[in-house]
Amino acid sequence: MSLAPVSCIDPTPAGPCLDDARPPAARRGEFDLDLALRHAGRRRLRLRYEDVGDVRAPAVLVAGGISAHRHLAAHAADAAPGWWDAQVGAGRVLDPARWRLLSIDWLGADGSLDAPIDPADQAAAIAALLDHLGVGVLHGFVGSSYGAMVGLQFAANFPARLDRLVAISGTHRAHPYASAWRALQRRAVALGALQCDDVDGLVLARQLALLSYRTPEEFGERFGPARVVEGRVRVAAEDYLDHCGNAYAQRTPPVAFLRLSESIDLQDVDPARIAIPVTLVAVEQDRLVPLAEVYALAQHLRGETRLRVLRSRYGHDAFLKEPGAIAAVLAEALDAGVPA
Amino acid sequence: MSLAPVSCIDPTPAGPCLDDARPPAARRGEFDLDLALRHAGRRRLRLRYEDVGDVRAPAVLVAGGISAHRHLAAHAADAAPGWWDAQVGAGRVLDPARWRLLSIDWLGADGSLDAPIDPADQAAAIAALLDHLGVGVLHGFVGSSYGAMVGLQFAANFPARLDRLVAISGTHRAHPYASAWRALQRRAVALGALQCDDVDGLVLARQLALLSYRTPEEFGERFGPARVVEGRVRVAAEDYLDHCGNAYAQRTPPVAFLRLSESIDLQDVDPARIAIPVTLVAVEQDRLVPLAEVYALAQHLRGETRLRVLRSRYGHDAFLKEPGAIAAVLAEALDAGVPA
Repeated sequence: MSLAPVSCIDPTPAGPCLDDARPPAARRGEFDLDLALRHAGRRRLRLRYEDVGDVRAPAVLVAGGISAHRHLAAHAADAAPGWWDAQVGAGRVLDPARWRLLSIDWLGADGSLDAPIDPADQAAAIAALLDHLGVGVLHGFVGSSYGAMVGLQFAANFPARLDRLVAISGTHRAHPYASAWRALQRRAVALGALQCDDVDGLVLARQLALLSYRTPEEFGERFGPARVVEGRVRVAAEDYLDHCGNAYAQRTPPVAFLRLSESIDLQDVDPARIAIPVTLVAVEQDRLVPLAEVYALAQHLRGETRLRVLRSRYGHDAFLKEPGAIAAVLAEALDAGVPA
Repeated sequence: MSLAPVSCIDPTPAGPCLDDARPPAARRGEFDLDLALRHAGRRRLRLRYEDVGDVRAPAVLVAGGISAHRHLAAHAADAAPGWWDAQVGAGRVLDPARWRLLSIDWLGADGSLDAPIDPADQAAAIAALLDHLGVGVLHGFVGSSYGAMVGLQFAANFPARLDRLVAISGTHRAHPYASAWRALQRRAVALGALQCDDVDGLVLARQLALLSYRTPEEFGERFGPARVVEGRVRVAAEDYLDHCGNAYAQRTPPVAFLRLSESIDLQDVDPARIAIPVTLVAVEQDRLVPLAEVYALAQHLRGETRLRVLRSRYGHDAFLKEPGAIAAVLAEALDAGVPA
């Protein structure tokens, strides 16, 4: 996640058109907004976004988990990989030659907002982004995990500004078991903070989170038995967990983790308030979002609802690790009502 | 768990008989043994046990999870509740009027053994107990969770001393995902220890373990949504987790937790070495012991094998929380070959 204030880096400032041979425009920007946070009063906040593709193309907001950010994929203005290169880019289902792709850094992601953040606050920030960019209506909102929760909030609170939602592995409420799991991750950070060691606590928190994102099926295939090393038992997954935890802690302010983790647990939207078309994607092996929760959501949505249930040994992380299945769902959901 | 060295407290020292109206004898004892630990060399260790019921009755060794101990149930010599009063006692399936019930405090449970402890070491200690008590052959070994792992080791290493094994929610090997989960619990203890605060780390470790013992189904029924309390999100299960974690940390030395948690991850016994009759009990919702692992075990045992699959919203803790279903399995498994 880039935190440097790069206000507008457009390689094709004259505005490209869809059949232009040049790469699609990629704008990165930020602006300040006043937002009445649901649990923390009115605040002046900075919103950072990317806006990739022709401004005349149908706009699609793309959002991922709490550790995702505005840089979806490599593009002309920033060749660094994004968090969803598998779906975003030339020839992919979210091709900026076809769609105008909008994305944000989550409110709180830079660690400067140490207050409870409701998913509805993120949806309000996205509405402010649309105002800022002059986008009246989104053709679609594609949200995965926390992004799906925010998408449901957006669909409920700004129905006139969204034609269709794709909500992958995220629902209208946090499940109490998943919330407990996250609360213990936050306690790991707190335990580290007691000794002025934010990093070790955050590493452990991320490792715990990672277990909730993956599945026994995957670990059973990847990892072997434990060994005794210097008088201690070391299990086979520890090298992997160390790598992941350390990489995350290096790029994430502890406050950002704490407040965005909390934000998931604040999710609470009445499905009966959502009347636009919604495609729900559930993963049978997801250990954070039980299938029964997605069924409950599907039953109470008021608009046209499609439910796609995937099987994946990657569980909650299927949106990152099952590119083929996710692309098929996105193609079906986004193409509806759009001339090819 | 009582750690006081009470060597023999038998209310009926003359030796009761099965049709005696007096309560069954209850002996609590301890003795020292030399044991060649698999990963830590030869050690002199103290083994603490209880021995309840007529010495002429068929003997059954009963063992539970790593936090279980020798006091299975209230008896004439100690009216304090045990960890398995649901199954053990007058009129229950493990009635000391019918069986001689043996049980131990796990090696390492008092925190004095700071070395890797293999489940096979526990099985060897149990064999030493049989020698000490003059018991040639156990009618049965009923093990749950870690106790099931130790039972499988006993069946493989001392087949002439055991007629039948009931292994509930424990298998021949630790699953890599469950091992990863436990490794992170041990890291929580290590994180606390960095600041000389063993208790907070152990509390968090226990809370994390508890999530692995239970299920989303149960939490979904028990707990409601999160709340914002003094600027922080507090999830509904936190009061419960606090209660459980604090109670556990008060009664458990951190070294005992660490070494017994490790011990689970060292489990490794070849099912093909087990040729005695085995009843396996699996719980479909168990998040620590995947059903597929129990199937794999059942397929490779060489003796008569029965498999009972339970459904329970209590997951891994079904052996504690589903007394009716467990009692039915025990009755069927233990009565085989015994005149009523």
